[in-house]
Parts: sequence; structure tokens; C-alpha cells
Amino acid sequence: MKLHEIGEREVVKMILNFVDEVPPGKNDDAHMFHKGFLLKIDGFAFHNSMLPWNTYYDMGWKAITMVTSDLVSKGSKPIVFAASLGINPSDNVENLIDTIKGLRDSAHSYNSKFIGGDTNSSQKDIWIDVVGIGELVVKYPIPRRNKIEDGDYVITTGKYGLTGAAFHVYYNNLDWQELIKKYNRIFYSTKRPQVQLSVLDLITELHEYIKVSMDVSDGLAYTLWTLSEINNIAIELKDIPLDEEVLDYAQEFGLNPLNLALYGGEEFNIVFIVS
Amino acid sequence: MKLHEIGEREVVKMILNFVDEVPPGKNDDAHMFHKGFLLKIDGFAFHNSMLPWNTYYDMGWKAITMVTSDLVSKGSKPIVFAASLGINPSDNVENLIDTIKGLRDSAHSYNSKFIGGDTNSSQKDIWIDVVGIGELVVKYPIPRRNKIEDGDYVITTGKYGLTGAAFHVYYNNLDWQELIKKYNRIFYSTKRPQVQLSVLDLITELHEYIKVSMDVSDGLAYTLWTLSEINNIAIELKDIPLDEEVLDYAQEFGLNPLNLALYGGEEFNIVFIVS
Repeated sequence: MKLHEIGEREVVKMILNFVDEVPPGKNDDAHMFHKGFLLKIDGFAFHNSMLPWNTYYDMGWKAITMVTSDLVSKGSKPIVFAASLGINPSDNVENLIDTIKGLRDSAHSYNSKFIGGDTNSSQKDIWIDVVGIGELVVKYPIPRRNKIEDGDYVITTGKYGLTGAAFHVYYNNLDWQELIKKYNRIFYSTKRPQVQLSVLDLITELHEYIKVSMDVSDGLAYTLWTLSEINNIAIELKDIPLDEEVLDYAQEFGLNPLNLALYGGEEFNIVFIVS
Repeated sequence: MKLHEIGEREVVKMILNFVDEVPPGKNDDAHMFHKGFLLKIDGFAFHNSMLPWNTYYDMGWKAITMVTSDLVSKGSKPIVFAASLGINPSDNVENLIDTIKGLRDSAHSYNSKFIGGDTNSSQKDIWIDVVGIGELVVKYPIPRRNKIEDGDYVITTGKYGLTGAAFHVYYNNLDWQELIKKYNRIFYSTKRPQVQLSVLDLITELHEYIKVSMDVSDGLAYTLWTLSEINNIAIELKDIPLDEEVLDYAQEFGLNPLNLALYGGEEFNIVFIVS
């Protein structure tokens, strides 16, 4: 059977049958491989991930942020990153170097080291895989699967809707060169996405009340739906924090800003469920 | 400038300018990201690495062994592995599952865990990146770059020539289905390559005499040449340990078995220089 016939969710389920379990559990955001240390590996092919206004530098930056988001959501601060790159030999050297600079600068923005890695020959465009190691600020990683009960609260870091607006520009083929002048924050959110490390202070302070955490890289609706499904519980949404530029953008194009907030993705905020 | 115009060695040199240094040093086989722990990430695209007689399971197996070889050569025993895979959606599910099984079984053969990772969509064939974490059995990782002096000895684990013979079959388009019956060890060396963890006992015992170590995944000649170049010293070769099947194969095809031993690659032995 072909992979596209069964869908990504089913593929992941099949793979998990062959995987060893470590805390906080299979299919969680990052894994504790040794007392106090978490590991996350994540990657993408550039053709899937590079928007028309993105540079190679942006792609390196984002790859580190993606991994940081998973490490931080489980309660660890990143300490080191390495990358493996697949490169087409007919690509420009400058593009490779820009990608590496993005990786390094993004790692440094998280007070972490970028220690290199590996390069290989790809047949088509660039692929990138980043591994990050995080040191726990709490005793155990915060699981995704825990008993959520009636009356628990959902809280989230950051604001929503910027990347949703950026994807709206892309999928509707709007004039980004013009729009970028007006909606700087919307475009910047897909160029230099940043995880707020101050979230770790929140985790340290509140950790006895935090039952569940999950990063929001696949979109707020997807994240909440996943948590709702695992726990077989309904989640009521109130006061989704929206970025002001999203309200302006939604008004200009006659959109519901909540849709931009719920179905965006790559926002690298973190959702907690607290008792 | 295009990447293929400047060559891999120059590309690596350029990248190293943007990388943070941790022990044992830039461009070494694996890196100490925290006291007592090494990290290695390594990968390949299947189109570059899959010989006609290889299965997807073989590829998963080899990917783990490649990383193990680097961890062990620096004096650490592997404890955990994770992988990131790029998969073409029109690939068969069975191929993916076989790859995962190979990854898991190979990790288990090194008394390590395989904890999963990430899957992505590739445009062409499968790519695979594996990260491994190793726990040092000695206090500091063994560097590649150290002062080699006149009178030091080169010692190596394992035997040589099997993979060289396998590549000879491939590049000369010989009838592998026939030859595999007679030269089982030659083909097996490219299907289930294995690092001997007992090397770590040797390292523990001899570590005060070991000045340098390097894995031999790029071929014995390349490894020795690299060490010779770094140290600006000549290395004299005596008694290269050859597998018996290599002698038979070389005789049948009128080859110098030393050439098979020197220019093979993917042998996953380790070379030490001891005082």
C-alpha cells in the first residue's frame, strides 16, 4: 500500500509499534533519554517549507526554533543543536552558508551552541534535520497525555494569527512584495519565529499545577483537538490572544480573525492545561 | 558558485567557520555536548547508499551502525537513537516499516533504545538522518587531532576488504545473485554492518596510551591519509588484517586484495594511534 493512501496519522501510529518507550511517552514532543535531558529531532524539505519571501537564512532559523519549541514545551531549556543537511550539488554555496548562519544565529538566540553536523547529497532540493538537546528545569518532562478534568484551564503563551495571515497571502497568491511593507509583523513571524524562553520560568513556577503541555507548531485548532481527543473531553475557547496586525489584516480582506488564529500553524507557542 | 564546483572538503571547511567548538574539536567524529555525553548526527539519501542487494531493513540497520561507529571511536557507548525520515508519499508503507524495523533492531543490537523521531515528505527517494547519544567510558572523548610522534603505532579493530569487494561487484556490474551464494560474508558486510562494542573495553584499558582515534567509514586509506595530513607525518602500513573471503575473491578476479582493503569504505572499524 502507498503511504499517501493511508495518511500521516495512520503512518505515525504504525511506526510507534516499533519504537521503545521513554518518558513522557510515545509520540510526545520530545523524549527523556537520560535523567534530566531531553532529545528532539525534527526536519523538513525546503520545497515544503519555504515561502516566496523566505531566505535560506530564514529556513535555518526556523529549523532550530521548531526543535526549541518542542524542548521548551516539555520543560527543558535547549543547550546544544546539530543539523544534518541534504544538498543538491548544483545548489549555490551561498545558499548553504546562509542556511548554516541561520542555524547558528537561531541557536545563539536561545543561548545554545550550534556544533555542526553532517552534509549529504540530495537528488532534489535541500532537506534539513535538526537535533536539539534540552536540560530539564523541572524534575520530569511534562506529558501530553494526562488526565484532564472538568474545570481545568487552558492557558497559552504568545499571540495568534500572524502565520495564519502569512499563509493566507501565500495560498491566495496576493502581492506579498506590496503587503510586506504594511504587515511587517505578519511576514516577520515566518522569517524569524522565536520561542520565548521566559516560558521556562512560568513552568518552574507553576509546574505542580501544569497537567499537560503541547507545542502549537501544527496550529492551535489541531493542538487543542489532539488534547481533547486524548482526554475525551470538550475544550471551550475563550479570549484567544490575537495580534493586532491580524485584526487589521482580517478587516482589510474581510476575514474572520479567529480562523487565522486557529488554523495557522508554525506559531511555536505553547498550550498548557492547568488545574 | 555551485557546490559541485568546490568539492566536499572545501564545503566542510567553509561550514566549520560558523560552528561552535566543543570537545574533541570541530570536524571530529562526535561531540561532547555535556560532561560525559557525546552526540552524533549522520544521514544519507537511499539513492546514494542502497546497493542492488540491499533491503530497506538493511538501510535502517546501517544508519544506526554508522552513528555507533562514530560514538564508539571517541570512547562512548551508545544509549539512545532517534531518526528523521523523508519519505515520498508514493513509496510503499512496507518499505517504511522495514526501514524502521532495521533501525530498531540495529539499536537493540547495541543495547540501546530506538525512541522514534520524525517523518517528512520528500520529493524523491527516502532520506534518513540518525542521531545517537553516547555515554563516555573514559573521562574525555578521544580526539582525532593530537600530536602523533615518530615511533607511535597504528592499531585497528576488525578485518578489511569485504565492503571493498562488495563495491567491486557493484561497480563492475557482476552477477551478484550468483556471487552472493559463494561470498556470503562479502555481501553480509553491506547488509548488517556491526560495530564491535568490545572495542570500548580496549579503550578503557588502553586509554592512557591512545593518542588519536578515528572511525574508518570512509575507507582505510582515507582515514590514514587524514591522520597523516593533520599530523604532517608518514604512516607505514604493515599487516593490514584481511578477511579470508577477500583473498578468495581477489584471486578469482585477479585483484590485489590490498586495494580492496584500502579503498573500501563503510567498514566501521576503528583506527587508533598509540604511543
